[in-house]
Amino acid sequence: MGFEGADPGTVRPGGRTARVRSAVLRAAGDALAEHGFAHLDLADIARRAEVGKTTVYRRWGTVTSLVADLLVDMAEQSLPRTETGSLLGDLKANARLVQRTLADPRQGALFKAVVAAATCDAKTAEALHSFYDIRVKEWAPCVQQAIERGEVPDGTDAHEVIRAVSAPLYYRLLTTGDRLDEAAADQAAEAAAAAARAGAYLRGERGLA
Amino acid sequence: MGFEGADPGTVRPGGRTARVRSAVLRAAGDALAEHGFAHLDLADIARRAEVGKTTVYRRWGTVTSLVADLLVDMAEQSLPRTETGSLLGDLKANARLVQRTLADPRQGALFKAVVAAATCDAKTAEALHSFYDIRVKEWAPCVQQAIERGEVPDGTDAHEVIRAVSAPLYYRLLTTGDRLDEAAADQAAEAAAAAARAGAYLRGERGLA
Repeated sequence: MGFEGADPGTVRPGGRTARVRSAVLRAAGDALAEHGFAHLDLADIARRAEVGKTTVYRRWGTVTSLVADLLVDMAEQSLPRTETGSLLGDLKANARLVQRTLADPRQGALFKAVVAAATCDAKTAEALHSFYDIRVKEWAPCVQQAIERGEVPDGTDAHEVIRAVSAPLYYRLLTTGDRLDEAAADQAAEAAAAAARAGAYLRGERGLA
Repeated sequence: MGFEGADPGTVRPGGRTARVRSAVLRAAGDALAEHGFAHLDLADIARRAEVGKTTVYRRWGTVTSLVADLLVDMAEQSLPRTETGSLLGDLKANARLVQRTLADPRQGALFKAVVAAATCDAKTAEALHSFYDIRVKEWAPCVQQAIERGEVPDGTDAHEVIRAVSAPLYYRLLTTGDRLDEAAADQAAEAAAAAARAGAYLRGERGLA
């Protein structure tokens, strides 16, 4: 579920170590979604995961390390991008993936909690930045293809276009509280595509405007 | 300093009550910027503000009420919009105001802390939504004027255009950690203006795309 490989506890192949990590990360995600970052507690997570407390302390040590590992896991499980043959189609697919994730009660709460955690802790912030970096790199090739098809000007900053699709959806989630529906996703994609076509994301210069 | 009336403790005319509120809100802003929401404490704020603890408890009662009042104050002190005669000029003025605020160490930290607080508390979230509502309403007339000048299509959702200017700047602050410089502000304004011209923010339909 969700764009960001958003089901952190999914069981994957692997031995006991992988199973423990999987159970602990799922429990951490549940706890974050339910109570937010401020109330995260390693002992509680161990209990939820049905894993020994010492194992959790030895392996992760702090709540911050655990959240950072959760973000690594979410990035690893990140869904591959969809190719539709047009920039707008690709950006819409991306926007809807982001929108579905953020509108999902568990996932939306989890992302809010992780962003909040990153505001108080540099290590979590770094893990969050890497997470978005991976997501942006996954989708950037669709802008490169659009350049090759002549849909957007050569020199368009692909990373900026991808970030522009997510930004209004996160802005709704985190600040204004506005609706996070499919119309919001489509609008985000259309705005980013239109701005890209007009040259607003040209690297190193400030577009046509 | 800052776009959001961003110096909450500025002394204004008024009696002792106004002076106390001013001192307490400045202290709350300082504490939030320095330590984040999780460590906010009414007794500490009273000490910083050199105001009796009982006064603070009686007037605000909880940390959440205090943060909500801080947001009301920030909205009240909000700077009026600039009129430049063109949509792009107006949106750039707005974007730079937002960018300067978020890039300022105290103000940026304060906004991060308030957004984080809103993720864990419904009352703070409501106060945050009102704050952005006031900011958006202050700037929306520039889009209306652009419609009258024929710069953007009739039926463009002015509020969406204003939100589109802020979104990429907050996204940088809260998630990706990318640079928050004037180029980022100008890009945000140019992208929003280009998308608006192309009809991406038409109300009730999904633009030309």
